[in-house]
Amino acid sequence: MGKARLEAFSDGVLAIVITIMVLELKVPHGEGLGTLVPLVPVFLSYVLSFVYVGIYWTNHHHMLHASHTVTGSVLWANLHLLFWLSLVPFTTGWMGENHFASLPAAAYGFVLLMAAIAYWILQQRIIASQGTGSILKSAVGRDWKGKISPFLYVAAIAIAFVQPWVSIAIYAAVALVWVIPDRRIERALGGKTSQP
Amino acid sequence: MGKARLEAFSDGVLAIVITIMVLELKVPHGEGLGTLVPLVPVFLSYVLSFVYVGIYWTNHHHMLHASHTVTGSVLWANLHLLFWLSLVPFTTGWMGENHFASLPAAAYGFVLLMAAIAYWILQQRIIASQGTGSILKSAVGRDWKGKISPFLYVAAIAIAFVQPWVSIAIYAAVALVWVIPDRRIERALGGKTSQP
Amino acid sequence: MGKARLEAFSDGVLAIVITIMVLELKVPHGEGLGTLVPLVPVFLSYVLSFVYVGIYWTNHHHMLHASHTVTGSVLWANLHLLFWLSLVPFTTGWMGENHFASLPAAAYGFVLLMAAIAYWILQQRIIASQGTGSILKSAVGRDWKGKISPFLYVAAIAIAFVQPWVSIAIYAAVALVWVIPDRRIERALGGKTSQP
Amino acid sequence: MGKARLEAFSDGVLAIVITIMVLELKVPHGEGLGTLVPLVPVFLSYVLSFVYVGIYWTNHHHMLHASHTVTGSVLWANLHLLFWLSLVPFTTGWMGENHFASLPAAAYGFVLLMAAIAYWILQQRIIASQGTGSILKSAVGRDWKGKISPFLYVAAIAIAFVQPWVSIAIYAAVALVWVIPDRRIERALGGKTSQP
Repeated sequence: MGKARLEAFSDGVLAIVITIMVLELKVPHGEGLGTLVPLVPVFLSYVLSFVYVGIYWTNHHHMLHASHTVTGSVLWANLHLLFWLSLVPFTTGWMGENHFASLPAAAYGFVLLMAAIAYWILQQRIIASQGTGSILKSAVGRDWKGKISPFLYVAAIAIAFVQPWVSIAIYAAVALVWVIPDRRIERALGGKTSQP
Repeated sequence: MGKARLEAFSDGVLAIVITIMVLELKVPHGEGLGTLVPLVPVFLSYVLSFVYVGIYWTNHHHMLHASHTVTGSVLWANLHLLFWLSLVPFTTGWMGENHFASLPAAAYGFVLLMAAIAYWILQQRIIASQGTGSILKSAVGRDWKGKISPFLYVAAIAIAFVQPWVSIAIYAAVALVWVIPDRRIERALGGKTSQP
Repeated sequence: MGKARLEAFSDGVLAIVITIMVLELKVPHGEGLGTLVPLVPVFLSYVLSFVYVGIYWTNHHHMLHASHTVTGSVLWANLHLLFWLSLVPFTTGWMGENHFASLPAAAYGFVLLMAAIAYWILQQRIIASQGTGSILKSAVGRDWKGKISPFLYVAAIAIAFVQPWVSIAIYAAVALVWVIPDRRIERALGGKTSQP
Repeated sequence: MGKARLEAFSDGVLAIVITIMVLELKVPHGEGLGTLVPLVPVFLSYVLSFVYVGIYWTNHHHMLHASHTVTGSVLWANLHLLFWLSLVPFTTGWMGENHFASLPAAAYGFVLLMAAIAYWILQQRIIASQGTGSILKSAVGRDWKGKISPFLYVAAIAIAFVQPWVSIAIYAAVALVWVIPDRRIERALGGKTSQP
């Protein structure tokens, strides 16, 4: 069974997820600079989530590049990942509208954590479907980024109830680590292949 | 006539259907845990519908995999299926906002029933277009899942006016039966090929 | 220059147009049957527009099937068609919310008329790009459906100011003529290739 | 690494961007001609932005046509471009709702300017990835349109605070220059390849 439709469907969902987030940036009714001020946190949340969905799209792209066939369990593991990513616009909007308050900031991290776990499950399903000598398994390698991110999300969720801005800083730092190209690894692997 | 655009268009519509449902999860205006409580039934409806649309996407994928050409009547049978699936966000939102009340729960089942019928029509149109020795026909085989689901929907619609939670349980059970991989069948058929 | 992206982009826009129309079917706040009554005209408008966009998608599919390369003017003629089709959700919602009143019914027909003209321009641009011996030109042939539809739209627009329900009947009749397969022609042409 | 998914994802995002702009054309509650009057500036903004997104899509199409592989930095340069284009519906809606007031008109130009810069960065990244003898580099050539547009945007942003209608005229003029086919160049280059 080919992977073309899996990619097309995932591209469609991710394209919509990344674009409907901008609908939370509600067009203000006035024309002054002051009407933009309440939008600043919403905009910042949008930028952060745009980067995260972008990372997922890029890595999903690389991961499927190292795959050739998809099984039924890969289809469902992929839908599971898309489910958690589809909740990103909700937590983004909630966090932005409440100016990075504790609970919304924790919820934002929770969805990132679940998406990271879902990505890991998808990766394992693909590796399992490839059997011994899996191309993806050797491409993933030690994957320190993929292993450390979930712990940072858990820490950020806990910290959100004390000092939410620290959590935001952690989310931003994790995103940055994933965006900055790790050229040595990219050369070796032909692309990043884990979740952020 | 190729099937590539039929798949691309269906993927597009299904990706949008699955994603706009999340827009019914309206971002709450407060930041407390209490603001999430009214969203719980909306969220549960979303999960159920996400699974249903996921099943349809997966099975549509398998069904078209067993097809090579599309005729005019297949195009329209496919649009007919997409029409009913496009109403899922509406019934999902209505059922969620009314905490699984009778009429919305029945309406939810009605749209599932019509989608199941539309899927069956599409299957018959493809089989007819393949003539004798249809690959799809032998792949579908006895198809007990596809045959029993419509009766369960009809039952759930009737029960909704007495005890809507029982209907919801039926919808969830049907979804579960479709998601749980039937490995013996999958091996034989190379994939599930009916509607839920 | 290939036609793959032209098809992919058009499929994307048409999939979104057909799906966002359903957003006008606003989830009612009550749970009774009465809350559905004001949605009936909105739903009927949705069905009509779904069929029209479906016809456009099907015919666009056939028309590009008979094309191999796309020029810059074909790209823009296609964008022009998508522009008018993108206004269908607006006129659909307006007509539905106002229970098929005169001006909204006329506006609905105006957008259909402009889309038909845009489709015709696109067809001419493709035929011109194919030069003498154009496959599309011979496939289109006499095209009585494509020639008569614009006159019916103009008539319906005028009639809308007197008796809007007659206009709706004309729109529905035109759609029906396009949906009903003209098997003799389909066999000859390998598909319908004009605008509705 | 192939370019197919980059194109598919970009097509998806651009298709959604171009279509959600129409959601700002809110369905009026009355049925009279007067209810359409406040929509006129929103509609005009929509037309202008539709043309701009269309230009970006067309040129993106041409630019990637002259590319064969994509690197990690190309993926991110492309996401950066999509980010700025995803803000077009916001500035379009804001400008339309405020009848082309100063600040919204300047914000509209600012997003166009950033998108033009992002397009230029993407172009440079692709040229760099192609090394010496880059096909794209020679196709871009002198690119007077691409070089002059940013200066016109900067001028229009400044002028918006004095006479916003002049800014709008500049935006419209720039769009026109890009839409009008430059046949001599098209013949030489096989397509326009810069940002508007």
